[in-house]
Amino acid sequence: MTDDLSADPGAAHTLAVRVYYEDTDAGGIVYHGSHVRFLERGRTEYLRALGIDQSTMLATAPEDRLLFVVRRLELDYLKPARLDDLLTVVTRPKDIGAARLHIEQSILRGEEVLSIALVTVVAIGADGRPRRIGPELRQLMAM
Amino acid sequence: MTDDLSADPGAAHTLAVRVYYEDTDAGGIVYHGSHVRFLERGRTEYLRALGIDQSTMLATAPEDRLLFVVRRLELDYLKPARLDDLLTVVTRPKDIGAARLHIEQSILRGEEVLSIALVTVVAIGADGRPRRIGPELRQLMAM
Amino acid sequence: MTDDLSADPGAAHTLAVRVYYEDTDAGGIVYHGSHVRFLERGRTEYLRALGIDQSTMLATAPEDRLLFVVRRLELDYLKPARLDDLLTVVTRPKDIGAARLHIEQSILRGEEVLSIALVTVVAIGADGRPRRIGPELRQLMAM
Amino acid sequence: MTDDLSADPGAAHTLAVRVYYEDTDAGGIVYHGSHVRFLERGRTEYLRALGIDQSTMLATAPEDRLLFVVRRLELDYLKPARLDDLLTVVTRPKDIGAARLHIEQSILRGEEVLSIALVTVVAIGADGRPRRIGPELRQLMAM
Repeated sequence: MTDDLSADPGAAHTLAVRVYYEDTDAGGIVYHGSHVRFLERGRTEYLRALGIDQSTMLATAPEDRLLFVVRRLELDYLKPARLDDLLTVVTRPKDIGAARLHIEQSILRGEEVLSIALVTVVAIGADGRPRRIGPELRQLMAM
Repeated sequence: MTDDLSADPGAAHTLAVRVYYEDTDAGGIVYHGSHVRFLERGRTEYLRALGIDQSTMLATAPEDRLLFVVRRLELDYLKPARLDDLLTVVTRPKDIGAARLHIEQSILRGEEVLSIALVTVVAIGADGRPRRIGPELRQLMAM
Repeated sequence: MTDDLSADPGAAHTLAVRVYYEDTDAGGIVYHGSHVRFLERGRTEYLRALGIDQSTMLATAPEDRLLFVVRRLELDYLKPARLDDLLTVVTRPKDIGAARLHIEQSILRGEEVLSIALVTVVAIGADGRPRRIGPELRQLMAM
Repeated sequence: MTDDLSADPGAAHTLAVRVYYEDTDAGGIVYHGSHVRFLERGRTEYLRALGIDQSTMLATAPEDRLLFVVRRLELDYLKPARLDDLLTVVTRPKDIGAARLHIEQSILRGEEVLSIALVTVVAIGADGRPRRIGPELRQLMAM
């Protein structure tokens, strides 16, 4: 379901997502909040492809824990997705700060772009305070 | 939003739930999984009315922690709920064992019964093993 | 649960939202996507307070149907919400175009602001194309 | 992601499901309502493998429309699922009546059974009334 990014750091990551009843609403299309869930799946698989397992992080000793939390979401809805659609979530790092990461994402159906997002993610420690993103991860993201 | 049950232990607890877009699906009705969420809201408010706060429990020292987890769900769907409906979730204890609780619930729109459920809940400790439900709680549930 | 805005058009609308298990995630806080659902509940109740029932709209003859769909979402997460929190969703119209509405929203716990949002909503007809927002609704929103 | 069942009607269908943050709750495990969503994904892919597309059905002329709705759910939770788990949803028809279908399902992590379900599904027409399940579908399900 995911790409192995080790061969090409910084490349766009893609994830296939199928639309089920749970994702739709009475308007007959995909509920706008479901895009937010699909984008999170894409970021999770992107991080996994970089070797970062969030459940491993949650189980890490507090002093070594590095969690990524969403700080800001900008999301444009261009066209509706529908029941049974097979969508593609594209995830690509845009730039990276000391503890902050901007990620560009989009949701497509074939070539058609249904929504685009710019997501700001912050690395925090177990205490909830920002933590520096290390050089290893920085290199993995090719920045 | 909830009843105070202290005056009448064992009585049925009712919670008003409004249906939003997030709860519906492309079939034009409330998604069947949303009933499960509504029922859980009802049980949570029922426990709160008995003086049991689940977030307090999660924050309690592991040796004193008592959590209620769903062990079995039987759920009959009789009629569809719809967008904007104002539903009532009725929650009533049925019987109580050493570490096990059977709860009867239903979801109504006015007098109309839309779904009925029998939920088996088990009291567990922080280690995930069953824990005896104490006499205080037993009395609160009037059994 | 909702304010009657007829006496004071353009005023901020507030909705109380309780956090349940369904809204939280394994990070121990409210899932970031749940804020999006809470905001939608706030907008729905805001529209209802203005006399606009979305389920009525869905049932209206196609030629008279006016639906509001989310076109853009900007959402800043400032502080985490937690299980059992009683939150307030504040909804306020910012400005209104021919077929477009900007709505300012925030989610608070007491006085504490947990997230703020700017939501662009577009009025569309049954054919999915933008439709003019009429003078009545414009007046209700006091703009 | 799905099996092609045409070669072996009546066989068990399996679907891989990854657990994301959206599926978990503050208890640190998968929210009990998420099992219901996973099971529905399994049934949807099972039907798709039999050649039944629910979105196609929703778009069919009312007089020919055949929809499957959940009438009853029995669900036993045996062990918790966790963030990042790669689960398998197993779906198998149990027996079939005139308009009613019993489906056995389970959710596994490797060989470990996490939950088991018996789901009663009813075939209805556009009017919401039960409709006979035709011989073709009956044969596909090998019953």
